[in-house]
Formats: sequence, C-alpha cells, structure tokens
Amino acid sequence: MESQQIEQGLQFSPKFDADGLIVAIAQDADTGEILMVAYMNREALDRTIETGRATYYSRSRGRLWTKGEQSGHFQTVRQILVDCDQDCLVLKVAVDAGQCHVGYQSCFYRALKPASKIDLEFTAEKTYDPEAAYKAGKS
Amino acid sequence: MESQQIEQGLQFSPKFDADGLIVAIAQDADTGEILMVAYMNREALDRTIETGRATYYSRSRGRLWTKGEQSGHFQTVRQILVDCDQDCLVLKVAVDAGQCHVGYQSCFYRALKPASKIDLEFTAEKTYDPEAAYKAGKS
Repeated sequence: MESQQIEQGLQFSPKFDADGLIVAIAQDADTGEILMVAYMNREALDRTIETGRATYYSRSRGRLWTKGEQSGHFQTVRQILVDCDQDCLVLKVAVDAGQCHVGYQSCFYRALKPASKIDLEFTAEKTYDPEAAYKAGKS
Repeated sequence: MESQQIEQGLQFSPKFDADGLIVAIAQDADTGEILMVAYMNREALDRTIETGRATYYSRSRGRLWTKGEQSGHFQTVRQILVDCDQDCLVLKVAVDAGQCHVGYQSCFYRALKPASKIDLEFTAEKTYDPEAAYKAGKS
C-alpha cells in the first residue's frame, strides 16, 4: 500500500514489526491518563476488537494475555486509534481499578526530577494492593 | 539491577532494546492528547534532557532529529515519565502548532469504526498546511 493511502486513507492496515508486533498504548478514555504500553500481534488485536476487552501479546511469556485475567482489572475498549503510518495504536479504555501490577493506577508513576538525568521522583500514590489482587502472575 | 529496584526505586535506568532504542510517547501536557510515538537512543534522550526540546532517533533516516527542526513545530518538554519496568517513556510536552507531518495536531487522527476490523474514520481535522510548513523533510 502506498504511503499516501496509509496516511490519508480509511483502510485499517496495521503495520506489524519483524516480530509480528505493534505498540499499543492504553489511555484512560475519561481522564486522558496514559495507563500502560504493551504489544499486540494480529491475534491479540483481533481478540480485542471481537471481545471489547484489551488483549495483548506478552513477549516475556510468549502468549496472549487479556489485561485483568489475573487481577480482575480489565480494560473495556471504547475506541482504537491508529497513527499516521499505522505502526502504533492507542486504545481508549474504561477502567474501574488500578492498571499497573505494582499497585498504581498507571505504570507511569515516576518522573525524572527537573534538571536531573538520573534521579526519579514519585508522581502518584498506589491505588490498590497488588498482593491481594494478583493470585498468580501479573496482568 | 533487580526488578524490585527498577520498579520501586528512584534511580532512572532506562532499558534500551537490542537496537539501543526506547519507545517515547509525546503527550500534550495541557490537554492530555497523545501527539506522536517515536524512538530515542541514549544520545537523543540526553539531548532532550539537556535542551528541553524533544529529540528522537529516526530509524528510517538513521540519525537524531529534533521534532520541529524542519517545520518549526517544536515540543517543549515539561516532564519525562518512565513506566514500571523502565522500558518506555512519556514526554509531557507543550506545543503551539500541529505535530503530525500530515497536517493534524496529533498523529492519531483516525479510529477504527465501531464493530469493524478494517474501516477507519477520521476523528480530527487538519490544523495546518504541511506543504507550507515543511520545506524539506519531515519533522
């Protein structure tokens, strides 16, 4: 498909990388907060579209995982956006519980301190107890 | 570094992939809109921190590029967030002009139509004329 068509057209043709994966960003549909970033293969994307629940491909575990399958903290997909060259997705999701396995609402709970290259500071507080939510595994 | 320290500690230790790159998401600091997704190598990240202007690594061009170097549509970095396993960055940026080279404010100007796997619809309108902004190249 030509670049013009990929960028300006209305045919969804997600570009998976050499490993068959595409970056998918989960963004809270209500607050705009970026919750997490993961990868999808074609199967994960299809399942997400079909079920309305975000399903990703875990590179470390080598299998599909539906976010929340262990913790119960699912993502209900309201909208799937694609970028200009169709190699990245944004999922606008509704959530009713913390999304990061460490216990925070978002995986992005730390920021670089101003003018520092090495020191982080916390920018959020934990919203749930991961020990209680995760019986086995992390999702 | 141990997982516990990477996830809960306050030392910034970004994990670059086998190609020396890390995913960086530019998010409008004021509106929360996700503007674009690109990659940084260590040098791009250092330059971004030092200058306060977002600089990425272009995989297609094989060189650093400061967003806006051609178009004038720079990103002023207000905050750099890192996720739990430190393999992804969010840059909260201030912008005063459209960020996508196609002419939109954000690269995510299309969404999958509800219940479709192949049909997109536009979710935004162009905010500037890319022909006028880009004299040579795209950034």
